[in-house]
Order: sequence, then C-alpha cells, then structure tokens
Amino acid sequence: MSLAIKDDEIDVVIGALRSDLTSFMNEWRPMFSRFHLIIVKDPDLKEELKIPEGFNLDVYKKPDIDQVVGSSTAIIFSGYSCRYFGYLVSRKKYIISMDDDCLPARDNKGFLVDAVAQHITNLATPATPFFFNTLYDPFSEGVDFVRGYPFSLRSGVKCAFSCGLWLNLADHDAPTQALKPGQRNSRYVDAVITVPVRALVPVSGINIAFDREVVGPALLPALRLAGEGKFRWETMEDIWSGMCVKVVCDHLGLGVKTGLPYVWRNDRGDAIASLKKEWEGVKLMEEVVPFFQSVRLPREATTAEDCVFEVANAVKEQLGSRDPMFARAATAMLDWVKLWKSVGSSSSSPRV
Amino acid sequence: MSLAIKDDEIDVVIGALRSDLTSFMNEWRPMFSRFHLIIVKDPDLKEELKIPEGFNLDVYKKPDIDQVVGSSTAIIFSGYSCRYFGYLVSRKKYIISMDDDCLPARDNKGFLVDAVAQHITNLATPATPFFFNTLYDPFSEGVDFVRGYPFSLRSGVKCAFSCGLWLNLADHDAPTQALKPGQRNSRYVDAVITVPVRALVPVSGINIAFDREVVGPALLPALRLAGEGKFRWETMEDIWSGMCVKVVCDHLGLGVKTGLPYVWRNDRGDAIASLKKEWEGVKLMEEVVPFFQSVRLPREATTAEDCVFEVANAVKEQLGSRDPMFARAATAMLDWVKLWKSVGSSSSSPRV
Repeated sequence: MSLAIKDDEIDVVIGALRSDLTSFMNEWRPMFSRFHLIIVKDPDLKEELKIPEGFNLDVYKKPDIDQVVGSSTAIIFSGYSCRYFGYLVSRKKYIISMDDDCLPARDNKGFLVDAVAQHITNLATPATPFFFNTLYDPFSEGVDFVRGYPFSLRSGVKCAFSCGLWLNLADHDAPTQALKPGQRNSRYVDAVITVPVRALVPVSGINIAFDREVVGPALLPALRLAGEGKFRWETMEDIWSGMCVKVVCDHLGLGVKTGLPYVWRNDRGDAIASLKKEWEGVKLMEEVVPFFQSVRLPREATTAEDCVFEVANAVKEQLGSRDPMFARAATAMLDWVKLWKSVGSSSSSPRV
Repeated sequence: MSLAIKDDEIDVVIGALRSDLTSFMNEWRPMFSRFHLIIVKDPDLKEELKIPEGFNLDVYKKPDIDQVVGSSTAIIFSGYSCRYFGYLVSRKKYIISMDDDCLPARDNKGFLVDAVAQHITNLATPATPFFFNTLYDPFSEGVDFVRGYPFSLRSGVKCAFSCGLWLNLADHDAPTQALKPGQRNSRYVDAVITVPVRALVPVSGINIAFDREVVGPALLPALRLAGEGKFRWETMEDIWSGMCVKVVCDHLGLGVKTGLPYVWRNDRGDAIASLKKEWEGVKLMEEVVPFFQSVRLPREATTAEDCVFEVANAVKEQLGSRDPMFARAATAMLDWVKLWKSVGSSSSSPRV
C-alpha cells in the first residue's frame, strides 16, 4: 500500500533569506545530511552565504536565476519566492522545503521530530480525500479505518502534497500577530489529516513536501503583494500557490495532507510595522477564496501543467479586471508553465 | 462569539444495554451530577436496572416506549437504538449521550477529561465548515485562524453536532476488529476539527452531543441490520443517523465537529462471532455512501424535520428497491418525523 521512497529521489530545498545559515544547517544536520540540498539565495540578499561543511548541496544565486528565467518579467524570485527556483531546477521526484527560520521541534514526549521522515511517510502512504476518518490518518501506526468507512475507499489515492505545522510562532497574518503579540502555539496535535476533496485550506509554505513530478507545476510564485516583505505575514504567494495545488489535486484525484510534522518557528519581525503592508493580502482573500471555490477545470486537463494553464486563464478572465495584482498573477502562472516545460524538457541540466 | 449554555438546558442520555450501571455511573459522577439524566433501558433487557443514588434522573422502560410510540412498527428502540427514545422525550435544548461501556479518559498529561464540559464547549463555539484551518479549531484556547483564512468566514456558523472519540477500544467494524484483535487506540489527539461542508464522515454514536432543537429530528433509529446485535460493531444505526445529520447540517448551514473529548472504551464482545452478522453492514455502506454524497435537498426544506422527510423519500425512491432494509429505514424515518412532531408539540409531558 505504501510507496518505497529512496533518499536519492528527494531534494531538500531551502530559500536563504538570511546570509548566515550556520545554526539552521547544524540543527537540521541529523535530518538533512542524507539528502541532496538545493539552496536558493534570495536575489535581494547582498552578503555572501555562510553554510557549514558536510552537506551535499548546490547553491543557486541571482545570475543562475537570470540565466534560466530569461525574458519573463512576471515571475519574480525574490524573498520567499526564491524557493520556487529550486523547485524548478530540481531533477528529483520529491521536494521537501523548510523556511530558514525554522528548527527541529520536539514532540509531546520531548523527542526531536524528524520532519523529513514524517513528510516522506505522508507522501508514501495514501490519502483519503473522499471520506473523513474520525481517528485521522488510517495509515499511521496503530490507527485504522473506523466502523462505517466504506471498504471501496480504503485504498485511498496518491498523496501529492504534505503541509506540516509549526510550534512556537504560529503562522498568523499581520493583524492577528499584532493583536496577540504574545500568543505562541504550544499545542502539539499528534495527527495527520487528509483535507477532504473540495475543501480549501490556507497552505503555508513554511514546512512542506510534495511530489514534484505530479504537482510541481502548481507550486508557483504568482501572487505578489505590492508591499511584499521578508516576513511570512507580509506574503501571500504560498497561500495562492496552496489554493492552486488543492484545486489541481482535487481535479486530478490526488490527496493533500496536513498536520505532522511540526517545526519550531523562531520569532522575528515586527508585526505592527508589517500591518501597513499586510492588510492588502487580507482583503484580497475575500476575492481569492470564492474564485478558487468555484473554479472548475475541464476534463481534458489531465496534468498539473494543463490545470495551471486553465486556472491562469480563469484568473485573468474573472479576477484580472478587479486588481492589477491578479492580472500579473495570471501572467506569471502562464509564464511559469512555459518555463517548467522548457526547463524540464531540456536534456541539459539548467545548472550553470 | 461563544454561547452561554446553562446546565439546565442539557439532558445527558444513557441507553442502558446492561443492567448494572453502578460503576459506570460512579465513574462519571463528577461530570454527570450537575445535569439531568435520562436513562433508557434497552427493551430487550430483562433484569432490573441497578443505578446508584445521588443523581437527578428519569428512567424510561418498555411500557413507556410502547405508550409513546403507539402504532409505528418501523421504529424499533431495542439495543443501542433505545437511546433515541431519550432524544425524543427530552425537553432540553442540548443532548449529551454516552454508551454505557465508556468511562472517563485521561489526557496526555494524565488528567481526567471532563467529556461533558468539552462537548458543551464544542457546541457553544462556532464551527468553520467552509474553509479548513490548519491549526484546527480556531476557538480552542491558544489557537487562532492561520494566515490566509478569509476574514469573512472567521465568525463561523452554529455548531449543531459534536462527535467525540475513544481511547483503548477503537470503533472498528467486525472484520477489522477480528483481523487486529489486539489493536488498541492509545493516540490522544489534542484537537477539535470542523468536518468541512460536503465531506461525509462515519459518525459513531458512542460519545456525542448535539443541539436537539436544531438537529434532533435527524438523530433517528432507522437503518437496522437483519442481524443487529448488542455490540457496536454489529450495528449501523448510528452511522446512518450520522450521515443524515451531516447532510442536514450541510444543507442548513450548520457545523459538525469531531475530535475531543475522548472517552475510554472497555473491551467486550467477540469480534469473530460478530463477523457473521456484520459483513452485511460493511456491504451496505457501498450503496449508502454514494447515496448520501449525491442527495440534494430542496431550498424549501428549512428545518431538520423537512430535511429528514426529503431524505427519507429519496431513500425510498433510490435505495428502496435494492434492499428491503432501506425501504424499512425510509418508513422509519417518515414515522420518526411524525412522532417527533407529535411528541414535541404535545403540551403534556410524554412521561408516564
């Protein structure tokens, strides 16, 4: 029932928004050292990266990005969006990606959580989007389907996306963070859940994993706030991208899981200062959510590329005139699909 | 945002399938003693009930049932279905119901769980069926909506139903229980989740609470297996009833929560012996689930009574010819709605 995922089928992608990765990399060493890493330096970052020895990795910087992206002016890889460049140039089947301000978390018993291993388990075991199991993930150890769960749905479907969570600093928006500056998440919920089909979810890009071959094209840097900054609460790119992933997975009959693994998110940034920028993103959601709730893809769309192409055209048509940000997002999505195909189909490695 | 639910708005309903309730009642005393209890004796049970002193309660037995139900031959209150008689004759706004083989559970820190208090919290705080919150119930202490959750959906909707879970003996069907006789649930998942709109869920009747005024008519003893027995894995009445509740709540814009509180379920029964009976229920689900997934209620159905009436007619029409059990379930549902109206509208108490 469960897939065997090999270490060399995985790239761990890190977007470097800060120059000194020493403590980040050293803390993650026990989990990361078996894997190939892709580090993408935020093109806005001036200082040289500091990366400790002992990892198998490739680093991509602004010149690499410029060479691959070429003429598209819609796709912008700065800030948190630099990670998407890593997704683009990876040649692996699976991607695991962590923000550079996260550290390994501890579970309820005080044991260090191997977030990489948990993401692999999430992707290797089926998802169950068509019926909710009250005891959560039936493929977790010691768990099964509860009475009443139809046998015909127990084999589940392929899981294409795994969204992990965060202890300490929860992923609030700027208004919530400003309103409750002292609030920290200390609740370790020992569960993995398949988000049911047609239910939308705010996917945070902080701690995620996915099947790049299957849904990679749907993870894209498209919605860029005018005042986007270098803190998560100043961005919406991952939320937009997460809606695309969910809609694409629903259409293709794939599963999206959320829950374990947790990472520990460190505090940084000033939410009050960010408030000026982030209200914009909060207001946009009121238009974004009804759009993604109602968008329907044609039966002919059978790949993630097809689906993203269709969603982009629907964005252009239905949202494009409401806000120039949406029109730009649609263009970025169309450019991204082209770029994905050209980079993916080129026989030579895109590395320079 | 949260409702104030008073103790005298609640009935705790216990279906007594065993005669000696002494240890059950004594273990639950700290949680139950503030509330009015309704105990319904399984009409198949011959021995006198043993109930310890010190509770405010009413007991209903076979003669009470016969008098109220009158001529309906479709509704059968024996076995686990005896509890529904308590739902029918209650005059309270809320019902909390526990199986008589459950005891209070302990949480991850070893503290006794007040399941009644947690159910009240679940019903008193809004549900969020239209968008999934990755950090689970945003109305739990220390939790909030995550970035990207639309503000327009943050007020949520009224929660009408709360499904609690079980430690120790999980609620498996007979085949699973027979296959994994030693498996016990020890995973305490510290979360409450709103089941998203249009997602179906196998609601177990073991440990539940609901707003009787709003969805009471949808909790009904309708689907009775030919070989129904006195163990949960030999029954389907609660699963069927749960599907009705979910479909009704989705139609009326109400919420269904699952998760906390846990209860401790004691072992009893022989799954292998039950296997002969319960395969039937397992097979039925393959027809039941597609039916409930596709049933649509007319806009004119604005109360739970209306909705159950519509579902019953759809059952008769779409499933009635497939299996006589479905035809009987449809009749029982129609009789139930009539009974609910007549008992509810009668000015004199139905107690005898």
